[in-house]
Amino acid sequence: MKQSCSKGKIATAALLATGLTVVCTAAVAKTVHVTFTAKETTVAIDNKGTEYPAWTFDGGIPGKLVRVTEGDTVDFKLINPKTNKNSHSIDFHAAQVDVLDEFAPVKPGHTKHFKFVAKHAGVWMYHCGAPTMAQHIARGMYGMIIVDPKEGYSDKFPKPDREYVLIQGQYFPNADDKVAMIENRGWAGALINGKMFHYDPVHDPDASLVLQSKPGERVRIYFVNANINMPVAFHPIAGI
Amino acid sequence: MKQSCSKGKIATAALLATGLTVVCTAAVAKTVHVTFTAKETTVAIDNKGTEYPAWTFDGGIPGKLVRVTEGDTVDFKLINPKTNKNSHSIDFHAAQVDVLDEFAPVKPGHTKHFKFVAKHAGVWMYHCGAPTMAQHIARGMYGMIIVDPKEGYSDKFPKPDREYVLIQGQYFPNADDKVAMIENRGWAGALINGKMFHYDPVHDPDASLVLQSKPGERVRIYFVNANINMPVAFHPIAGI
Amino acid sequence: MKQSCSKGKIATAALLATGLTVVCTAAVAKTVHVTFTAKETTVAIDNKGTEYPAWTFDGGIPGKLVRVTEGDTVDFKLINPKTNKNSHSIDFHAAQVDVLDEFAPVKPGHTKHFKFVAKHAGVWMYHCGAPTMAQHIARGMYGMIIVDPKEGYSDKFPKPDREYVLIQGQYFPNADDKVAMIENRGWAGALINGKMFHYDPVHDPDASLVLQSKPGERVRIYFVNANINMPVAFHPIAGI
Repeated sequence: MKQSCSKGKIATAALLATGLTVVCTAAVAKTVHVTFTAKETTVAIDNKGTEYPAWTFDGGIPGKLVRVTEGDTVDFKLINPKTNKNSHSIDFHAAQVDVLDEFAPVKPGHTKHFKFVAKHAGVWMYHCGAPTMAQHIARGMYGMIIVDPKEGYSDKFPKPDREYVLIQGQYFPNADDKVAMIENRGWAGALINGKMFHYDPVHDPDASLVLQSKPGERVRIYFVNANINMPVAFHPIAGI
Repeated sequence: MKQSCSKGKIATAALLATGLTVVCTAAVAKTVHVTFTAKETTVAIDNKGTEYPAWTFDGGIPGKLVRVTEGDTVDFKLINPKTNKNSHSIDFHAAQVDVLDEFAPVKPGHTKHFKFVAKHAGVWMYHCGAPTMAQHIARGMYGMIIVDPKEGYSDKFPKPDREYVLIQGQYFPNADDKVAMIENRGWAGALINGKMFHYDPVHDPDASLVLQSKPGERVRIYFVNANINMPVAFHPIAGI
Repeated sequence: MKQSCSKGKIATAALLATGLTVVCTAAVAKTVHVTFTAKETTVAIDNKGTEYPAWTFDGGIPGKLVRVTEGDTVDFKLINPKTNKNSHSIDFHAAQVDVLDEFAPVKPGHTKHFKFVAKHAGVWMYHCGAPTMAQHIARGMYGMIIVDPKEGYSDKFPKPDREYVLIQGQYFPNADDKVAMIENRGWAGALINGKMFHYDPVHDPDASLVLQSKPGERVRIYFVNANINMPVAFHPIAGI
């Protein structure tokens, strides 16, 4: 499967923003190798470049998109470099493994390596689960894994003309107040693929990206709510 | 289609409270003319008449019910009188238009006029979207548009014996604290069709209205959640 | 119907924790007698025994599980002993009765007795509804009634290998701040069947219970959200 929306500059904004990993659909299950490196670094959380003391997978918020097909094996490695100050971990909602082993915290200077079979098609969150988990997610350690159905496109799951990946998170200016994060206090903005007003030049003069489609196109949106303790009522609006 | 619940005094309370616009179903699509005038005025937000510095469509909270049939054209006009202090706008969730044009803020002394086709049957919110949108909604600028299915009643959508329109909003005593509204802090009550304990004489001695039905009747409730950032778990209870 | 999960010590933890009432399915509708006594007492709200000034049905949080079959009559009695300081009541979501009569507050020293037919299969909450209801629930007066479908197990509702009852509530350290309870402020933990980290020895060294299943088993979870004003995104994880 090719990304049908990979041609135009604007249309691919959201996919590229998450470091899209394009994976070809094969007739037989395959093994997909994925390596994440935990990076404690600053990232821009808005369009004008305001810096945030983030904890990330590979340096960005959110982490890279992982995309596989139902039945594939994910061969996963998490590297937590010696230079980090915190333990980190991975929790793939698409995996059915022993959370006490595969998903356990990895200390700085250590690496975790395991495999899992993506048994269930769907759109799944992944995140760091090291304590305090709420803080690790709020600092930026989250992303999406798409497991495409093994039968491919069908009447029930028609081929889209365009696809967008949208991952919503919360911006907590006080990156140290774990209790506020858990209690849903003190957040000051919604991060869409890591930035406030990311694709909204109407409300933010510094925004340069938009999500675009043509009349009549079928647009499929893959959405993950990475808020700590707050539901999302997803509500897209559009200009012409 | 006639309102089957338009006979009794009590039963029509909720419908009348929202300034019901009764629209007849026709065999062919028609044009429905709707005009709203933005009014910055005080309204009673409880049954004993406590006043609130509201911003409204046509002077009440919520705005008038708009009811059309799938395929109808809504010919809409928003008047923002010179005497208002704020820009206002309309955002019909039932419309597929250019939010940058049709839904743009209208300055005091100006009028907006546009048409849209109600393509999708359903129960939709409308609201003012002028910035800060959360405050414009919290002050009272919201309502419901029902788009009835063009095929009329069917086995899947049977004719009800009674219909109620219920629109829930939040009462923020501090009508100026926009950040609190967005962060879901400081609200002090739930407004049902604009009033706290509106149809609840059990908990409010000043309440005079009730929603009523007879055993065995089919009651259809049209509900909109106009809270700023809070889900609603709709949970009706009844006395005999 | 027998509880298929009633053999092992570990597997029955959740069921026993709620004081499971095992009820046999009969070919004909039957009358099930249930009596609750309101008890204002201290209960342990974590695994190390931290005491909380609770209000309870029968002395525990949550109240006893009630389990009947669709069509059964529940003959219910609520006793509010003279020694209590507050009025209490019952509100069965599985019942269709007059809330002003059957669900009315019962003063200390009084008893309420009524019957209802469980007409709709499902998993339902019950709770005390005496004012201030939020406080009565937050103090512990809630539980679950399961109404099994009268046709028994079927392709659509297959027989499980194991069943767990999980009821989530909020722990408000300040048991007197009713407004905070309503506004979802000041809670400090999630109670699962009445205790924080109840079945989570990974995060709590004092935890001794786990919910267990074998690979391939069908596990049915009956869940009630007894939070005051907060949704729950139910998300079980497991170790091996």
